[in-house]
Amino acid sequence: MPKRLFAIVVIHLLIIGPANISNASAAADDAAANSEWRQPDPENTVYLDTPEGRIVIELNTRFAPATVKQFKRLIREGFYDGLRFYRVIDGFVAQGGDGSDLDQELTQPTLPAEFEHTTNGLNFVSAQKGDLFADETGFIDGFPAALDTETKTSWLTHCPGTVAMARNNEPDSGSTDFYIVIGQAPRYLDRNLTVFGRVIHGMDIAQKINRGPSNANGIIENSDAQTSMLKAKVAADLPAEQRLNIKVMSTNHQSFTELMDSRRNRTHEFFHHRPPAVLDVCQVPIPVEIN
Amino acid sequence: MPKRLFAIVVIHLLIIGPANISNASAAADDAAANSEWRQPDPENTVYLDTPEGRIVIELNTRFAPATVKQFKRLIREGFYDGLRFYRVIDGFVAQGGDGSDLDQELTQPTLPAEFEHTTNGLNFVSAQKGDLFADETGFIDGFPAALDTETKTSWLTHCPGTVAMARNNEPDSGSTDFYIVIGQAPRYLDRNLTVFGRVIHGMDIAQKINRGPSNANGIIENSDAQTSMLKAKVAADLPAEQRLNIKVMSTNHQSFTELMDSRRNRTHEFFHHRPPAVLDVCQVPIPVEIN
Repeated sequence: MPKRLFAIVVIHLLIIGPANISNASAAADDAAANSEWRQPDPENTVYLDTPEGRIVIELNTRFAPATVKQFKRLIREGFYDGLRFYRVIDGFVAQGGDGSDLDQELTQPTLPAEFEHTTNGLNFVSAQKGDLFADETGFIDGFPAALDTETKTSWLTHCPGTVAMARNNEPDSGSTDFYIVIGQAPRYLDRNLTVFGRVIHGMDIAQKINRGPSNANGIIENSDAQTSMLKAKVAADLPAEQRLNIKVMSTNHQSFTELMDSRRNRTHEFFHHRPPAVLDVCQVPIPVEIN
Repeated sequence: MPKRLFAIVVIHLLIIGPANISNASAAADDAAANSEWRQPDPENTVYLDTPEGRIVIELNTRFAPATVKQFKRLIREGFYDGLRFYRVIDGFVAQGGDGSDLDQELTQPTLPAEFEHTTNGLNFVSAQKGDLFADETGFIDGFPAALDTETKTSWLTHCPGTVAMARNNEPDSGSTDFYIVIGQAPRYLDRNLTVFGRVIHGMDIAQKINRGPSNANGIIENSDAQTSMLKAKVAADLPAEQRLNIKVMSTNHQSFTELMDSRRNRTHEFFHHRPPAVLDVCQVPIPVEIN
């Protein structure tokens, strides 16, 4: 008896396959709805290299323009090179940035809070109405997001792979320290921190970042035990031949809608108990092709 | 300016601290409501050693007696020693068991479906009513769980760290292959597979298990790239001095209720936007002390 086991739960991913890969220019954001696959803009793609491998982050200029601008400036100045993930809580976040010393003075400007965005003019692709934490969840520009229907406010949600700027108590106190969500979506942080990126490739690498002790708030005292950011680069700064060839399925394309439908409606005979026809926006993988 | 950043989001964990550690016998399940910390029964605690380190699994005999019985027999026969995690999908599951050959014949009996349990007589500690996937979520015997109020049915939920038996399409076709959930809770699998354990320590190790290619259903063809289960042991089979001294916060204790309350009601000034007073049952860490 062949054992197929979990084949069925991801079968729809396989069905979709790598067809119709677009060679459109990276700036063709407006045409995304017409293309099944999009190439993230190299100007807003970051390669974060660690001893375990490369983490690829797509930046979001619509929701976090000031944060993205400073983050890229810092990358280009080499600010992050050699810094470490010094606070890492398994199941929660890996945080690093301005050094492993918590008492270190800020050396860079603080950033405005970029927690929310009006829904006006946004292409919001709905995943779920009546999510536990929001009126509605879905995707905007390829990022998991949520919205408040009454106030017409939207925000990028905290899902695994979310990249956001850490801060002190004051909303505008973020500066250089950032974190990657590495565990079950901490959605209670939504609208409280500036989400400015998303890991589009290399979450397995992010999962290898050394953890800190849970009874010490994840702080890793011994810097040798902290995973290093060897080098951070903006993809656009590399020669074309050194860039990764990454295609991400457009969340505006019908293929993605079908992917969501297939995950919402589990009709395969495997499902002895038919699950409720609901979607957790953080449990919808966005397909990526990399060469 | 000292950077405290995420201190506030886990501060309640710190407040609880390691007080009142019980030295009661491991069989004192019935007294759990009176003890802040409990010691998992060594007879139902598994050490799964990998080259990356040890994963500690607590088994659940109430919900999955037949599965636990067979799993422990197999462990004691050395069945899993040297087997590998051959299907590993980042953000989803790490699966291994009866070998890396998908066409391998079953060599062990198939198991009955142990997907659900009546709620009668269970101590269900509520976390959230109106969860996306269930009428209510909470904890039973220290495990995240959910229930259907109409049918008085309960089940163990698929959360990060959940250990469950894989199967083919037939509900009763599980045998030896199991998986550990390593990503955002795949709750749509609830009531469809036998959850029989939970990683209580070593999720960081589970996160280091080598991933397979997402476009090949996570199957790792090259066995050298598969993370090995070097050895699996039932803790009770080791001399007492070789057992880990693990205490898990009792989900029946008032301290855990307070922990949930503190996560449901985020009143700290950090929360510029007060999150909705809701809890994702899979986003409630159960504190563990290990010496």
